[in-house]
Amino acid sequence: MNNRESTATSTLLRRLNAGAVLDALRATGPATGTELMAVTGLSRPTVHTVCDHLISRGWIDEIEHRPPERGSGPGRRARQYEFNARAGFVLGIDLGQNKVTTVVADLRGDSLAEHTHSFRGRNIGARARLNQTQRTIEATLEDAGLEKSAVLAIALAVPGPVDDSGHVVAEEKYLPGLAKIDLREVVGDGFDAPVLVENDANLAVLAERWRGCAQGMDNVVELLAGERLGSGLFLGGRPIQGGHGAAGELGFLSMVDGVGNTDGIALLARTLGAEAVATGVAKPPVKAPAPDRAASLADAVDGDPEQISAELVFAAARRGDPLAVAVVDEVTARIGRVIALLHTLLNPDLVVIGGAVAQAGDVLLEPLRRAVGELVPNPPEIKNSALGDHVVVTGAVRRALDHAALELFQDVHGARGEG
Amino acid sequence: MNNRESTATSTLLRRLNAGAVLDALRATGPATGTELMAVTGLSRPTVHTVCDHLISRGWIDEIEHRPPERGSGPGRRARQYEFNARAGFVLGIDLGQNKVTTVVADLRGDSLAEHTHSFRGRNIGARARLNQTQRTIEATLEDAGLEKSAVLAIALAVPGPVDDSGHVVAEEKYLPGLAKIDLREVVGDGFDAPVLVENDANLAVLAERWRGCAQGMDNVVELLAGERLGSGLFLGGRPIQGGHGAAGELGFLSMVDGVGNTDGIALLARTLGAEAVATGVAKPPVKAPAPDRAASLADAVDGDPEQISAELVFAAARRGDPLAVAVVDEVTARIGRVIALLHTLLNPDLVVIGGAVAQAGDVLLEPLRRAVGELVPNPPEIKNSALGDHVVVTGAVRRALDHAALELFQDVHGARGEG
Repeated sequence: MNNRESTATSTLLRRLNAGAVLDALRATGPATGTELMAVTGLSRPTVHTVCDHLISRGWIDEIEHRPPERGSGPGRRARQYEFNARAGFVLGIDLGQNKVTTVVADLRGDSLAEHTHSFRGRNIGARARLNQTQRTIEATLEDAGLEKSAVLAIALAVPGPVDDSGHVVAEEKYLPGLAKIDLREVVGDGFDAPVLVENDANLAVLAERWRGCAQGMDNVVELLAGERLGSGLFLGGRPIQGGHGAAGELGFLSMVDGVGNTDGIALLARTLGAEAVATGVAKPPVKAPAPDRAASLADAVDGDPEQISAELVFAAARRGDPLAVAVVDEVTARIGRVIALLHTLLNPDLVVIGGAVAQAGDVLLEPLRRAVGELVPNPPEIKNSALGDHVVVTGAVRRALDHAALELFQDVHGARGEG
Repeated sequence: MNNRESTATSTLLRRLNAGAVLDALRATGPATGTELMAVTGLSRPTVHTVCDHLISRGWIDEIEHRPPERGSGPGRRARQYEFNARAGFVLGIDLGQNKVTTVVADLRGDSLAEHTHSFRGRNIGARARLNQTQRTIEATLEDAGLEKSAVLAIALAVPGPVDDSGHVVAEEKYLPGLAKIDLREVVGDGFDAPVLVENDANLAVLAERWRGCAQGMDNVVELLAGERLGSGLFLGGRPIQGGHGAAGELGFLSMVDGVGNTDGIALLARTLGAEAVATGVAKPPVKAPAPDRAASLADAVDGDPEQISAELVFAAARRGDPLAVAVVDEVTARIGRVIALLHTLLNPDLVVIGGAVAQAGDVLLEPLRRAVGELVPNPPEIKNSALGDHVVVTGAVRRALDHAALELFQDVHGARGEG
């Protein structure tokens, strides 16, 4: 009965078994082989095969354990296994339109060092952007006191869908000049580690599940809403990437009545804010501001619409500035329709607003909840990400960790002998 | 290290282990315990515990096996285990707007008997619909020569989202008079088996993966497009039901420019066809038909728009009737936009058009592929379901089988002793 299907099942089982042993050791302190057998239900030969493999790769250490002595005789020695979080390291990178952030973490995912570099202007050239990314990576490794050879896996988040090849940004508009460049080569230069190029929103929802506000939840959508609007889908207990890695793209939603375009919240706020300042009134269907305070947002930027930023609009709205409030109303009406559609189609328990814009706080969140509640019955919970502008890079760390573990298990074999 | 997380992992592993043993036996012929150990990587005590449990529930039989004799001495006897497909049976029911279909299947999913009853008129009362469903169930069991007690699980497909409670149709419009009725009670009357009430499109995509045109595919969307339009999502290798079982609903897509409403293809074709016949011309943006053949679809129904059916429209379009072709153009334009949106958001490898309307064949499929190709880059493959109007009931059988296996494993325990 050793047909192909059974062999596939068997390989999967062995990986699951190896993963179970590693998870048990990573989550807790040292454990004996017998304890690992009890927790995993695996046979002694299987546990020993898995542990030998993990030891050979340095992920676990074998230590001698002497239990508390009973009576006067010497205690019986037992071998224990212990997870070694510093057997290797991973690198997470968030390469955005405005800045790059890199984090070096150990095998538990705890950060050793991190750096952020803000690009000067949004239209920085591709070469300058990549050079700066490399410098940021090197500075982070130096801070952590690590050589490149210590890094087991690298995950690079990019703002936009990734090509079928899995290593270039699919569309020019997201990172000007970078589309069709093999980012694995540039970022992985000097490393002996795989580079995974991934969509930022897909990583954000991983982070939310790992260390954010969606822990333990099986149906979550993250709206990453800065310059662009992207969504990361975690449905039925696992990340959804689509057949070609492009799940979660929202471009076509511009066809939904009242959405208009799928700019991110930050870009939308800046654009609408600049329009409002330039014309002195907000565009319909935004209510006209009360005349006596109409100029306040404009005053803040000396009447220069170019100086409007999303932060400025949200700050002014928090102060009650009617022009800014009108802009936020329009932004929430548009994003609310996007959430309503995602909710109808995917029925998540939670929608997380992620990225820098989440810092707008309740000034955005409360109207957004109202807008969605008016559009659909039983609306999902809507929360701001607690991970702030670290959500994407945290997801990149998690992705790199998962990949390192996968590589580790690639050549693991279960015992075939007597159990 | 016996914390809660490890215990959960352990329970999951035991179910996986039990499932692996059962899958191996279901897929192939009899096997010895040693063979099962080799295939699953499980210890002898675990294999024996699982097998004893499966024997006690009748799902596998223990048989004596005498290998071919070598030399003159008696062959060594070895015990073998064999899957018993007739240890129990499941019932799949597709309760639609126009008809009810029931299938009784064995534990491999092979049909023993099936019945279909067409309702007289779409506005049949709730009581008559349920009485007929019960009679159809009884006729099917009688044909199969089975008592109700032999049925281990029942899955009932309904056209529309299922309530949070998991046993009533959530909205009145789908099955008039049936919303808020506990369908488990009515359908399960006299059975000692659980009744699962499920959305029809969710079951359709399960069927497509099991025995249809999506076998082995991890990212599939099924558009169930008869009277209503629903979608079943299978993404990242598993069915997506949403936090409250309502994933795949498309009502909100009526807000997409050019979709207009989310009637199913059949209803849309009938409505637009009747309009075209009544007015003698198709509505914009449909092209005006050539004058000399304008009346041909109308002729077919003696000018009575009430007699227009989807089948009639598709048949006339196949003949080249310009009025019918114009109607099909408009139908495909609208459905094409729905598919384009699903593709943008979910990036499936395959979109299957399921339900009775799939029988329209290429007259619908070719224009649909063109329409989607004009809207999005890298469009998904689009196919008609090969399961025809059996797709939903086939999914119901699969769902019932899965549930029966889950119940089976609920009290299974792995060996905790020495491996």
